[in-house]
Formats: sequence, C-alpha cells, structure tokens
Amino acid sequence: MKSFVEISPESEFPIQNLPYGVFSTPDNATPRIGVAIGDLILDLSVVCHLFSGPLLKTKQDVFKKRTLNAFMGLGRCAWSEARTTLQQLLGTEDPRLRDDAKLRGRSLVPQSSATMHLPAEIGDYTDFYSSLDHATNVGTMFRGKENALMPNWKYLPVGYHGRASSVVVSGTPIRRPNGQTRPKDDEPPTFGPCRLMDFELEMAFFVGPGNTLGQPIKINDAEEHIFGMVLMNDWSARDIQKWEYVPLGPFLAKNMGTTISPWVVTMEALKPFLVDNYSQDPAPFPYLAHSDKYTFDIKLEVAIKPEGSASSGTVCRSNFRHMYWTMKQQLTHHTITGCNVRPGDLLASGTISGPTEDSFGSMLELSWRGSKTVDLGGGVTRKFIQDGDDVIVSGYCQGNGYKVGFGTSTGKVLPAHPL
Amino acid sequence: MKSFVEISPESEFPIQNLPYGVFSTPDNATPRIGVAIGDLILDLSVVCHLFSGPLLKTKQDVFKKRTLNAFMGLGRCAWSEARTTLQQLLGTEDPRLRDDAKLRGRSLVPQSSATMHLPAEIGDYTDFYSSLDHATNVGTMFRGKENALMPNWKYLPVGYHGRASSVVVSGTPIRRPNGQTRPKDDEPPTFGPCRLMDFELEMAFFVGPGNTLGQPIKINDAEEHIFGMVLMNDWSARDIQKWEYVPLGPFLAKNMGTTISPWVVTMEALKPFLVDNYSQDPAPFPYLAHSDKYTFDIKLEVAIKPEGSASSGTVCRSNFRHMYWTMKQQLTHHTITGCNVRPGDLLASGTISGPTEDSFGSMLELSWRGSKTVDLGGGVTRKFIQDGDDVIVSGYCQGNGYKVGFGTSTGKVLPAHPL
Repeated sequence: MKSFVEISPESEFPIQNLPYGVFSTPDNATPRIGVAIGDLILDLSVVCHLFSGPLLKTKQDVFKKRTLNAFMGLGRCAWSEARTTLQQLLGTEDPRLRDDAKLRGRSLVPQSSATMHLPAEIGDYTDFYSSLDHATNVGTMFRGKENALMPNWKYLPVGYHGRASSVVVSGTPIRRPNGQTRPKDDEPPTFGPCRLMDFELEMAFFVGPGNTLGQPIKINDAEEHIFGMVLMNDWSARDIQKWEYVPLGPFLAKNMGTTISPWVVTMEALKPFLVDNYSQDPAPFPYLAHSDKYTFDIKLEVAIKPEGSASSGTVCRSNFRHMYWTMKQQLTHHTITGCNVRPGDLLASGTISGPTEDSFGSMLELSWRGSKTVDLGGGVTRKFIQDGDDVIVSGYCQGNGYKVGFGTSTGKVLPAHPL
Repeated sequence: MKSFVEISPESEFPIQNLPYGVFSTPDNATPRIGVAIGDLILDLSVVCHLFSGPLLKTKQDVFKKRTLNAFMGLGRCAWSEARTTLQQLLGTEDPRLRDDAKLRGRSLVPQSSATMHLPAEIGDYTDFYSSLDHATNVGTMFRGKENALMPNWKYLPVGYHGRASSVVVSGTPIRRPNGQTRPKDDEPPTFGPCRLMDFELEMAFFVGPGNTLGQPIKINDAEEHIFGMVLMNDWSARDIQKWEYVPLGPFLAKNMGTTISPWVVTMEALKPFLVDNYSQDPAPFPYLAHSDKYTFDIKLEVAIKPEGSASSGTVCRSNFRHMYWTMKQQLTHHTITGCNVRPGDLLASGTISGPTEDSFGSMLELSWRGSKTVDLGGGVTRKFIQDGDDVIVSGYCQGNGYKVGFGTSTGKVLPAHPL
C-alpha cells in the first residue's frame, strides 16, 4: 500500500498508520481534526465531504468538531469505513485528492507548522497498574520480595481514578510541585518542592462508544469500545506520593500533569502487531477470560534531555507486550460493577516495565529508589528528574518495510514556584 | 424578607434559600436552569432578560444553558448580583413578576411536575475523607484503636479521585453490583453480587471559577472558587472495596453510582449558619491555615425505606459541622501541587460521622461491621442495604423562623444482574 504523498521509509506515519489528532495552524486558530500522513496532516474538516460511505455520509459533521469524541462514539464499523476512505483518498489510485492541487493546498498542512491539542475531551481518566514487573519492583522496594504483590493483583487489573483535568498534550511544560512530604519517618512532615520527581512510561487507550450505568461491557464486546492508543507519561512526585497515598491511593502526587502524545493510533492500524497475551496464572474469572490475542508488540523508549544539552540519553527500552492484563480485560473489569464509560474516556496501562533492568519504566525503578545512578551519556547521570529536563517518550511498531509510530510524548520540568 | 409566592413556614426553599437546579417538564423536555421557591421553580431561561445588573446584563445567556457550569464560572460577584436580582423579583415589592400573570404563568413551574437533572457537567469528582470520627471508626475496625488514624490524616485532607461519569441525580435507581470479593481471608476470591451494600452520608461542593494548571489556589482566595453545596450518597460495596482497594484506593466499589441532590444551595444562602471550625491540632501548614469560620451548621439525616413499606426509618442524625477539614482547606490542598480545577467540578466531604453512635454516616459504622443490627422501626432491622431499599439523605439549616434546606438525595437499590 502506497500514498501519493511522499513518505520517508523511516516515517512513523505511512499510509498503514493514519492516526487521528486535533491541530491548529498560525492562520487558523480553530482546533480541528486531522490525520497524520508522512510529514503532513490531512485536515478532515476540509475533506469531510469525501467520506461518502454508507455509515459516514450522514455523519460527516463528526469531522468538523474540535475533538474526536463524536467520531470515537460512532463505533468500529464507522472507524473502519473512515480508514478505508482515507487509504483510498491518500493512495496512488484515487484522483480526487491526488489530482486536485487546490484541494491539496487547502487540506494538507505541514506538521511542522501545526500546534497539536488534546485529541478528545476526556470525561474520566483511569490509570491501571498492569505490568507484573513494575508491580513486583515497586512492591519489593516498599514491602520486601516476599510481599511484593498484593493478593488481589493476579485476580483483577488493579486500577484507580486519575485526574482528567490535568491530562495535557505533548509539549506542555510541567511545573515541579510543592507539597507535603516526610523525609524522615520518625519526624513530622515538611512542606516544600518535590525532591523525587519521576516519569512513568505508560500507554493509554481512548474509549469509543460508551455503556449505560448499570450495564457492564462483556469481554467479547470490549473490542467494540476501544478506539485507539497514545503514549503517556504519568508524572509522579514520589516523595509526595509516599506520604499522601495511604489509605486512599495516589492523589496530588500525580495531579501536576499527565502528558499524552497527540496522535491516536487506531486499533485497526495496530492489528498487524498483535502478539500472544501474557500467560495468566491463576486463570482469570470467566467475566475476564478471552482467548484471542489482544496485546501488541510496541517498542517503547524513554529519553531524558537535560536543559541546554544537544542530545538526550535513553534511560529505558520497554515494550507494551509486557502487560499482564489486556486492554479488553481492563475495560471489562472497569464496568463489571456497572460503571459507565463514555466516548473519549482515557484508560492507561500503568507503568510498563519489562523483566530486564534497562526496561524499567520509571526512575524509581531504574535508580532502584535512588540507590544508583542512571547514565545519560557524556558523563551526565540522574537518579530522578531535574529542573529543565525534557522527558521524551517514544514508541513504534515495526512492520515489513514500514513503521506504525506514535510520535513522542514530551514535557519539560520547570522549577517549583518559590515558597 | 418575604416572597409574593406563598411559602409554607416548613418549606426548605424560602426566599432566603434560592438554590439552583436543572429541570425539564412534560411539555418541554429541554433541561434548563431554575431556582426553587416554595413548591415552585422559577425558570431562569424565561426570565433571564430581567438580570439587568452591571455584571449579568451582558451574560444573560448563562441562564439559557442546559447546565450551571457557565454561571458557576462567572464568580462570586456575579453570583451575588444574581441572588439580589432573584430576591427582588420574587420579593413582595417588585411588580415585574408579581403583577405579570402571563410571565408568572410561563416562568413558574410546580416542582411536582418537573424532572430534575444533574445541575452541572462534572469534569472531575473528588472525594475527601475529612470526618475525624468516620476515619477513626473505620480505622479502628480495620487496624485497631491504636493505629486507627494514618499518620498523614491530621496534616492534610486525605482524598482521592472518584468517578465523574457515575454521579447521578437523586431518584436514579442504583443496581447492586457484581464483583470480586474474598469472603474468607485464607481462600481465593469469589465472583458474585455484593453482599455488603452501603451508603455514605456526604455533602459536596461545586467549584466556581477554575485555576490554571501549575497555579495553586491560595487559601485566602479559596472562597472565590466555591459555588454551593449538595447532599451526596456515595454508595459503597464494602466487600468489593475491601478486596480491591490495596494499594491504589477505592475504585469499582464506588463506581456503581454516586447520588447527589438536585438543588445547589449557594454559599451565600449558607452564610447565616457559619459556625466555628473544628479545632485542629497540630496546627495546619501555613498554606492550609485560615482563621475565618468556614464550616456550617447543617443538620443531616439518613432514612431507609424498605420496598413496599409505607414509612422509612431514620438510621443516622449527623451534622456537617463535624468536618475536621474545611472546604477551603480541601480546595487549597487539592491545587497545591498545581492541579487545575474547572467550573462544575465536584468535591465531596467524605462520610460525615459525628461523635455519637446514632450520628455515624454509614451502615458499616452503624452496624459496626455487621456485628449489630440497626432498627428501622416496626420490627424491621438492617445491617447493610437490601434490594428494594430506598436510601433517603436529607439536610437543612434552621434559621430564625425559616429553613434553608437541601431537599433530599434518594436512590433505590435494584437487585444485581443474574450471573
């Protein structure tokens, strides 16, 4: 499959990908929906009249919205029809866009000139904790190897509600928070800037059609409700977290911002990269059991670029396939008590650590609670994130002669406000 | 102060109250903003042209919305101007509404004919844990008297993110959830209907103007961001909660629904009922310290009405004044790490238990973990909530010759879906 748009073989956005995002440009500040193709964006608000398939011809207005929520809510058949239409329009055979210089001029925008926005209005954001290696690492540090995993961990995908308002798009700076911490366990807490600022390498998926309150989504229907995925950095203030999180879980330690990549890669684009699910023992309850593959070979990296430095140092190489629980299981479990989800809700994986030390998805694990340094190259090291550091999360799938990539999710840490 | 509308002395909605809500009627299904007055609702979408004060004359469209978010976002001076306008319009002196039979006919609707809706689109919902008696009771049950309170409890208002999508308006039935529980600590978990269904007596406040991510709200400015209050029942599946909540806090055990009363009572209406704040020891950090009163004498009750029963039995009599942390402290703490809040966000108190056994705000405490029965009268008892039970939360302030009430927050528990 090829596009009439010239695309470098190294591009993460070939015609096999076609991720959706929301962008604006210097000459048109209105956020609108686009699809990444090579180095360009196809502005769907301009070409929405070309979506003339049976499902979308009466729903073209979803492409004129400021967010993807309405399109997400249309469901899998409509998403598939949109993808087919886009692959035709951007392919080499169809003349409608290829041969219409005026329409191309109006609808194709360089990514370099665009400002990206959050792809959806996020009603609720949930964060899971579904990497066995991460849960084991953190549990070992805080409770010892014998009690590393809580008894519930292998029976259900442990998760908690995150803060939706502070989910931001890649590029948004993050302010180091002030807050309460207790540096010494036998002394009272103190108030001041977070000293243990961390990233968490995660991915997240956007919900498509929702369900009614009181009506759980069945595991066999879960796929119908999963639109696509993004990269995520769940910024974490470890010292604030440690003091505040008992007994009700993480709260302010995660609220200073959660960064996601701007391009939502659809599940259909990820299908060629399906791999065997993580082997689960004990067998999950029937409401969580599915035999089809639903995890993905997505190569993930985190790099840190110190302020003023020309280059970044990679600190973590992980893979989405390390997830113990699948996204279908997460979504099904989330609704089993009747909880309703809505189009545009965001469900995140939790930190994605692999089994090897270089695949750990947080500085907490990489520096093993600050007990060792992590090398950024050029003699620069870190235990946690410093002011001015840019944290760059990237990820892609390697196809046969092409990549399906997620771009990056980046954020720079600004110094705390003076007290 | 008197209204030209006839109002019984027992009414919770005299001219001193004027709470805001969103309603529809059989002849007009569009949800719109109204103000409760006696047994009537004043439809603000019909009389919005009469808001001719300096702040609102150019903002009358906020009263034509389907939710209160835009009005909430205008801030305290606009809220105050609206209240003054409403007290004039509904008072005995002003002829504009009093003497205009046609306008009265179009704008005054019996509450009995109206369907109430959620007053706002809730971006994020946060639940605190701010009653010392409740935290002590629950801590004593699960960890013993010596370790009842976690070390952080008196230093910061402990809270967690709740689920915004499942907040529903009074009258919405709640389905008993299915879920994982572990009835015996030394055996594997089981899957099935919740056996320990509970209510939590709470109140919650709606946020007015928001703040920018990274810019905390200062304690002295907090009042500018607090619009008004509602009653809340934070339904809780105790057996599901006990199994799922470590280490990341309550999740599905609260997601089957959270019920709020439909009328938002403004902080200005509550001002006459200010009482001394709970005495705090240790003294809070400066960022949380304020010397002005900001807790309220609000009498609260919970009653249970079994299916088919003609009467309900009161199981709890509590008071909002039992809160250890004030709403100003909750809001300020929530934003101290930079978290942004938005108009219409909902921040709840946590279960409001008082010091006496009849003032405990949940069946968990009232039945002391099921170790004793709670009397509903007529020989009927409960340890937890049964299918068909209506749980009715009510609350009011007693003024000199008038009440400022919240109405009720009710919900009936439906049987679990068959497995």
